[in-house]
Amino acid sequence: MRVRVGFTPGEPVGAPVGIVIDVLRATSTICQALASGYERVICVGEIDDARALAGEGVALAGERHNVRIEGFDHGNSPREFVAGVAARSTLVLTTTNGTRLLLAAAARCETVLVASLLNLGAVVEAARATGEDVAVLCAGVEGDFAIDDAYVAGRVAEALGGRPDDAAIAAIRLAQTFPSAEEGIAGGSSAANIRHAGLDDDIPWCARESVLDLVPRVVERAESAVVLAASS
Amino acid sequence: MRVRVGFTPGEPVGAPVGIVIDVLRATSTICQALASGYERVICVGEIDDARALAGEGVALAGERHNVRIEGFDHGNSPREFVAGVAARSTLVLTTTNGTRLLLAAAARCETVLVASLLNLGAVVEAARATGEDVAVLCAGVEGDFAIDDAYVAGRVAEALGGRPDDAAIAAIRLAQTFPSAEEGIAGGSSAANIRHAGLDDDIPWCARESVLDLVPRVVERAESAVVLAASS
Repeated sequence: MRVRVGFTPGEPVGAPVGIVIDVLRATSTICQALASGYERVICVGEIDDARALAGEGVALAGERHNVRIEGFDHGNSPREFVAGVAARSTLVLTTTNGTRLLLAAAARCETVLVASLLNLGAVVEAARATGEDVAVLCAGVEGDFAIDDAYVAGRVAEALGGRPDDAAIAAIRLAQTFPSAEEGIAGGSSAANIRHAGLDDDIPWCARESVLDLVPRVVERAESAVVLAASS
Repeated sequence: MRVRVGFTPGEPVGAPVGIVIDVLRATSTICQALASGYERVICVGEIDDARALAGEGVALAGERHNVRIEGFDHGNSPREFVAGVAARSTLVLTTTNGTRLLLAAAARCETVLVASLLNLGAVVEAARATGEDVAVLCAGVEGDFAIDDAYVAGRVAEALGGRPDDAAIAAIRLAQTFPSAEEGIAGGSSAANIRHAGLDDDIPWCARESVLDLVPRVVERAESAVVLAASS
């Protein structure tokens, strides 16, 4: 199994299996929402696309620059999704970086899995079980490298084993320089932006490892939306 | 001074000062050629562009996939340029990755400097002397991340100090995981390609630090060519 890493969303890094990371916070939120009972998460790139999907049994969530979108039920804090889900079965999510990368990954990988630290062990097992080459794809911040996603990419690549490319080797070495996951994700610009929005508690929350035994997977894809459901 | 790093050539990372790295081997070759007496190095992206510049006092150098181009005077091994230069004053160079990045950097940075390990100390001093923000730009391998360039980017960013972005922090941490420069550049796909071409000796040669006290700088730019001359 070859393991590639794309540190920024514009890199055309592909493989049969794509693992998408936006640890602060879209992919952590997706994992938690599915774990809490949503049947599906529909990720869309644009706010208007999200609004067009509103309706019975649908909750809207999303942010732009870490601020909840006006009129939406939720922002993009995974802590908002810890409580059990009532009647709503579908979460529609649009975020600055993560959703757009999911759309791009769905266009070039046959299987697309969603990774966070919360489901680290489960996603590695699921990827390995495919027996296919893997591309670990980082959302970054507005197109740029984000050290929190690179840290998680390193953790995923290290756990996968196989034959890492240069970027995967670098990610593994980078991750090994941090004494803890929280330190791995807390020092970059994503974390600074979250602190600026007063959401500091999201950071240690997203740094918890392998507390959810599920793997969000793209089950439907369209030009401007992907639908994710849980597998375990 | 803000210090940014672009790990792959497609990233639109810019700043007033760009430092371009293709340590194996284009930027090492440029440094050595100017140190050995060439007055200028003209970098072009395409083989035909190089051939069009042939003439008196001009030597042609370049490779595609580490193989010397047919009819050219030199390949892209910096060791070919150690001997003093006779009557020729201009070297025309076209390489797979480095030349193309130089053209891209020249399009978005006011000042473009060329870095290798050979001139590490000199290029850091020259960049710092500008007092401007710096973008450290890696050539990579055919558009992908290359760990040898990332290693040198980390060394440059560390020596520059200032305020590193996420990518610069990651590059510095990555570089610090290697006990020596030779180990920093010898473990990736660039080095493997060079060994495959039988040019193993280029690797320790390019790993020598701060042995040349000069900084190649872009002094002219056109749509398909940049002209480099030495400053010290």
